[in-house]
Amino acid sequence: MNQTKKDYHSSENGKTVLAANIAEPFRKEIRETISSQYIERPPKLVGILSNNDYGARKYAEWTKRACAADGITYEMREVPKHKIEEVLEEANQDPQVSGIMIYYPAFGNTPSFYGTSMDDYLRDTICPTKDVEGLCYTYRNKLYRNQRFLDTEKQNKCVLPCTPLACVKVLEYLDEYDNSNVTGNRLNGRIITVINRSEIVGRPLAAMLANDGADVYSIDIDTVYLMRRGQLLETTDTPETCVRKSNIVITGVPTKEYRLPTDWIAPNTTVINVSSFKNIDETTLMKVPGIKYVPLVGKVTVAMLERNLLRLHKNYSTFQ
Amino acid sequence: MNQTKKDYHSSENGKTVLAANIAEPFRKEIRETISSQYIERPPKLVGILSNNDYGARKYAEWTKRACAADGITYEMREVPKHKIEEVLEEANQDPQVSGIMIYYPAFGNTPSFYGTSMDDYLRDTICPTKDVEGLCYTYRNKLYRNQRFLDTEKQNKCVLPCTPLACVKVLEYLDEYDNSNVTGNRLNGRIITVINRSEIVGRPLAAMLANDGADVYSIDIDTVYLMRRGQLLETTDTPETCVRKSNIVITGVPTKEYRLPTDWIAPNTTVINVSSFKNIDETTLMKVPGIKYVPLVGKVTVAMLERNLLRLHKNYSTFQ
Repeated sequence: MNQTKKDYHSSENGKTVLAANIAEPFRKEIRETISSQYIERPPKLVGILSNNDYGARKYAEWTKRACAADGITYEMREVPKHKIEEVLEEANQDPQVSGIMIYYPAFGNTPSFYGTSMDDYLRDTICPTKDVEGLCYTYRNKLYRNQRFLDTEKQNKCVLPCTPLACVKVLEYLDEYDNSNVTGNRLNGRIITVINRSEIVGRPLAAMLANDGADVYSIDIDTVYLMRRGQLLETTDTPETCVRKSNIVITGVPTKEYRLPTDWIAPNTTVINVSSFKNIDETTLMKVPGIKYVPLVGKVTVAMLERNLLRLHKNYSTFQ
Repeated sequence: MNQTKKDYHSSENGKTVLAANIAEPFRKEIRETISSQYIERPPKLVGILSNNDYGARKYAEWTKRACAADGITYEMREVPKHKIEEVLEEANQDPQVSGIMIYYPAFGNTPSFYGTSMDDYLRDTICPTKDVEGLCYTYRNKLYRNQRFLDTEKQNKCVLPCTPLACVKVLEYLDEYDNSNVTGNRLNGRIITVINRSEIVGRPLAAMLANDGADVYSIDIDTVYLMRRGQLLETTDTPETCVRKSNIVITGVPTKEYRLPTDWIAPNTTVINVSSFKNIDETTLMKVPGIKYVPLVGKVTVAMLERNLLRLHKNYSTFQ
């Protein structure tokens, strides 16, 4: 849309954009803020881990390393599942803790007679003033209603969930946001497809993009909805017709098997994969002219986690 | 435990107890209260239905019929899924509405890339002052912590979820509660197994029974925990050893295939099936001496729904 001189536009065919480059300026700013303002009293993040899930342990490892590099105190509390609530409540009450995250699945990998809702319960039990991931009910509820502040005095901005927020930062980096418009209108006229409608990635992401003015097609296994500024609308579009007319396509399917058909993707589309699995065949994608492709956003997600933590520390920390 | 003269004790072998008999006194009390105190301003229940699920439609039909019989205004709002939140918010705001329920699954029957959490979101979006089913996060959180009031002044008792509450009423009817003890200790010394640990039936139920003093074994597909007064404890017991030592066994497995092995059940056990499927072979169960068996609790559940509605109407209705 915008003309720009950034190098990833120079190729006629697709170009891959790395998350680390997008993350770095944010982390630099965080490091500077902490070393200049919070050196005596750095924010403290508590991570609660209760499983041997490979992805969860890797995420824990990343957060630990990033926190160490950026001046954040990180403490991992490894506990058996039946102790999670107790440890969570302690951290909720502890004035020395500025942020808390749980590495999921907690109970979720245990197949349940009715699904995984004990993890949903845990997610909602993190106090909003410490919820670095921004996924508790309070924040999702605000987000889906396009309400940007936690309080009526509009002092405390809502925390936005890290992976969706990382996508926004990626799209800003790729000049998909039109900064000549006011906040809330910077994606006006853009058509975006988000494949995944979970409460932890796809739905909050679609809501954020729709709150910024885009028409967002939200696709899950057998339904397609159009999201437009807090409204969920019916559509006769199929996944294929959605993707074909989209300027931006974001895939977040948490399975090995899923592949988005590359021939649906129009030239000059921005494609972001937020799943830990490759949701698209990269070789054929790269042959589509003008593609910008971000294969992973994890590093930006961790930067957003740190950013959320710093905000919570500023706004709510009472520890002296 | 208690000596009693009720007829279901007279048989040497098992005896089936019908929910309708247990429900009737509650419904009679509700009818009398409404006709004496609320005849000009009866409580109004709104049911939101957005699917063709057989069980949901049947439940809607039951609530409608029971409300009509007992003097409650019932309004069914049948809406497409994408309209649920809008209609729910209207009902949340409407002073003429005293109670709201959603017939699930709403989005839940749509397989999702990450599970069914849009239904969890909806459940939490019903205002606690209108939540007749008592399943929103606020009430579950209080229940799991054994906090019985919504407010610090202890004016407004928490709403308890209908199906678990129905089980309590069944157990009271069967004299399993020891009324010579104070509230909170009336199941002291009892061992109970609850098979199902969903956030909508099994976990709240186990918590309620543990809050009343029982040792409750909470069983889900591949885990067993012991609940004791708000604490989740590890145990080396297996489903079989739990059931063998239990005075009360409650099954809530929502599948056709599941059958609890009858030979695990000790003589004189009380067995309640809260699933809409038969979780136990009734013919062999009836051969176990002294069994009391409640095959369905739906009618008591509906009575509890009405009871919760009446309480919400009393406590919060501002409609004149």
